[in-house]
Amino acid sequence: MSEKIAVIGAGLIGRSWAMVFGRAGHQVALFDAFPDALDASERLLDASLADLEANGLIGSAREVRGRISRADSLEEALDGARWVQENALEQVAVKRELFSRMDALAPADTIIASSTSAIPCHEITDGMAGARRMLVAHPANPPYLLPIVELSGADATSAETIARSRVFLEGVGMAVITINKAVKGFVLNRLQVALLTEAFKLIEDGVVSGADLDKTLKHGLGLRWSFMGPMETIDLNAPGGIRDYLERFGPSFEEISIEQSETRPWTSERYQRLERERRDVMSQDKLPERTAWRDRRLMALMRHKMQAAEEIGE
Amino acid sequence: MSEKIAVIGAGLIGRSWAMVFGRAGHQVALFDAFPDALDASERLLDASLADLEANGLIGSAREVRGRISRADSLEEALDGARWVQENALEQVAVKRELFSRMDALAPADTIIASSTSAIPCHEITDGMAGARRMLVAHPANPPYLLPIVELSGADATSAETIARSRVFLEGVGMAVITINKAVKGFVLNRLQVALLTEAFKLIEDGVVSGADLDKTLKHGLGLRWSFMGPMETIDLNAPGGIRDYLERFGPSFEEISIEQSETRPWTSERYQRLERERRDVMSQDKLPERTAWRDRRLMALMRHKMQAAEEIGE
Repeated sequence: MSEKIAVIGAGLIGRSWAMVFGRAGHQVALFDAFPDALDASERLLDASLADLEANGLIGSAREVRGRISRADSLEEALDGARWVQENALEQVAVKRELFSRMDALAPADTIIASSTSAIPCHEITDGMAGARRMLVAHPANPPYLLPIVELSGADATSAETIARSRVFLEGVGMAVITINKAVKGFVLNRLQVALLTEAFKLIEDGVVSGADLDKTLKHGLGLRWSFMGPMETIDLNAPGGIRDYLERFGPSFEEISIEQSETRPWTSERYQRLERERRDVMSQDKLPERTAWRDRRLMALMRHKMQAAEEIGE
Repeated sequence: MSEKIAVIGAGLIGRSWAMVFGRAGHQVALFDAFPDALDASERLLDASLADLEANGLIGSAREVRGRISRADSLEEALDGARWVQENALEQVAVKRELFSRMDALAPADTIIASSTSAIPCHEITDGMAGARRMLVAHPANPPYLLPIVELSGADATSAETIARSRVFLEGVGMAVITINKAVKGFVLNRLQVALLTEAFKLIEDGVVSGADLDKTLKHGLGLRWSFMGPMETIDLNAPGGIRDYLERFGPSFEEISIEQSETRPWTSERYQRLERERRDVMSQDKLPERTAWRDRRLMALMRHKMQAAEEIGE
C-alpha cells in the first residue's frame, strides 16, 4: 500500500532514503532546512535514479522520480506522513530540537526514525512526549545501494515501535537488524572497527601492504561474508558445525585474540601514514572516478545476489 | 606452459589444489601416504570437477581430470616436479620429516610450499639444506573456490623464492599476498579473529542475535569488502579519502576500539552457547545440504566477479 513518507534532510543519506521509499511505491516528501541543498538534491536524484534504471535495479526512473516531491516546510513534509526519516546534522542539539518539533507535527502513531550513525537514541529522545514512537534506523552509506538498517531504540521506545519498524523497512526491501542494548557505534561499525583496528596494525607493522590486505578480503574472507556472514561461515567450516570449528581453532584463535587486545591511540600521524599507503595504490584525483566504479560494482553485485537468491536459494 | 606439479596429501585442501593446477593446464601428480585416502580423493575429484563444469567455471571436467594423475610414492610424485604443494597433517614433526625427504627428492630449483594454516614457516624448514626454496602458501578453504593465497617465508627463504611463488600462483589464477614478518595466524585468520572476537561478545551480551549479526555482513559490510576490501572502502567513504574519513570517525572509532580491547577466554561454555544460537537458526542435520548451497553460491559469485571485472573494471 502506498503511504506518505517524510524524509527530513536532503543530503546523500536523505536523498538515498527518498529513492528507497519511492522505488517501493511510497509517496515521498523531501524537506531540507536549506533550500539550496534541496535544489542540489533534486538534481542528483535524477542522476542516481537513471543509474539504478540503467543497472536494472528499478523499472522506471521516471515513475520513481514522480513519487518524490519537494516539501517547502517541515509542516508540509510531516502532514499526513506515516513514517518520518530524519537525516540532519550529527549533533545532539540539532536533532533534539528537530525531534521535538516533529513530535508535535507528526500524526500520533507515526514512527519518527533517525539515521544517526553515532548518537544513542536516548540522547535524542529522552523526555519527549512521543519518545515511545522514536528510534534510530541507521543505514549504511548509501542506503539505496546497501540494504542493511540497524534499529536501536531508547528505554522509552515501545516494543511495538521496534516491531512495526522492522516490518515497514523490510517491506521497502531493506535488511533489518534489531539492536537490543545501547552500544557505541551500533553493530555494523563495531564490527568494522574491530577489523580495521587489526588491519591498521598489520599495515603499520610492515606485516602486509594495504593493497595485499584488501586482497585478503576481496578474494577470501569477504566472499563468504557477502552472502552468509561470519557466524554461518564458521558453522559450515567444520564437519560438526560451529562448536567443532571452535574446538579445533579456538586455542590458536585465543592466542591471536590476546595479541590483538593491545590498544594504540588513533592519531593523525597514523592517519597520514595510512593515507600515504593508499595514495601509492591510487592517487587522490582518481577517487571520484573510482567511487563511480564502486557504485557500478555494487549495483551489479546487488543484481547478482537477487538472481542467485532466486536460482540457488537464500 | 604446462609443468609437472606435485600435490602431497589428498584431503580436501590437496584435492582442491590439484584442481587449481589442473584447470590452469598443468600436469598434477597427486600423492597421499594412505592409499585409501587417495582412492576416496579420486572419487571426490570427479564430483567437484563436474560441479565446476556445471557452474561454468571450467570448460571440460574431463580434460582437467585427465591432467591429474595418481602417484604411488613420494619419489614418483616429485620426480621432475616444478612446484610441490604439501598438505599433510598440521603437526610440526610430520611436516619436518616430509620436508626433509622432499628436499632430497625435488629437483634443485623446485619450490616446496606448505599449505599450513597455523605453523610458522621456520618451524618446518629451519636447518634444512634447501630452506631457501621453501615457504608457506596458505590457501583459504577450499582453494578451488576461494582464490586467496598467503605467502609467508622463514628468514632462510630467499626473496627470489617469494617472488617466483607469487608469479607462479598468480599464473594459475590465485590472488596472492605476501606476508613480510612472521605473525601468528598469518593475515586472513588474524582479520577473521578480530571480527569474530567482537561478534561473539555482541551475541553473548545480548546486543544482537547471531542471525542479525550475519545480516550486518551479508547485506552491509561484506558487500563492499567482497570486491574492494576494507582499506579501499574507507578511502572511498569520505570526499577527501582515507585521512578525511579517519579524521571524521577516528575519535568515536577510538572509543569503540578501547572497549573492544577487553579479552575473554575462549571456553567450551562459550562455544556451546554460540552453538545453541546457531542451532536455533539451522538444525545440525541441515549442515551438509547448506554446505552444498554455500558452494553453489560461491561458484555463482566467482562467475559474477569475473564478469563484473570484465564489464565494469577491476
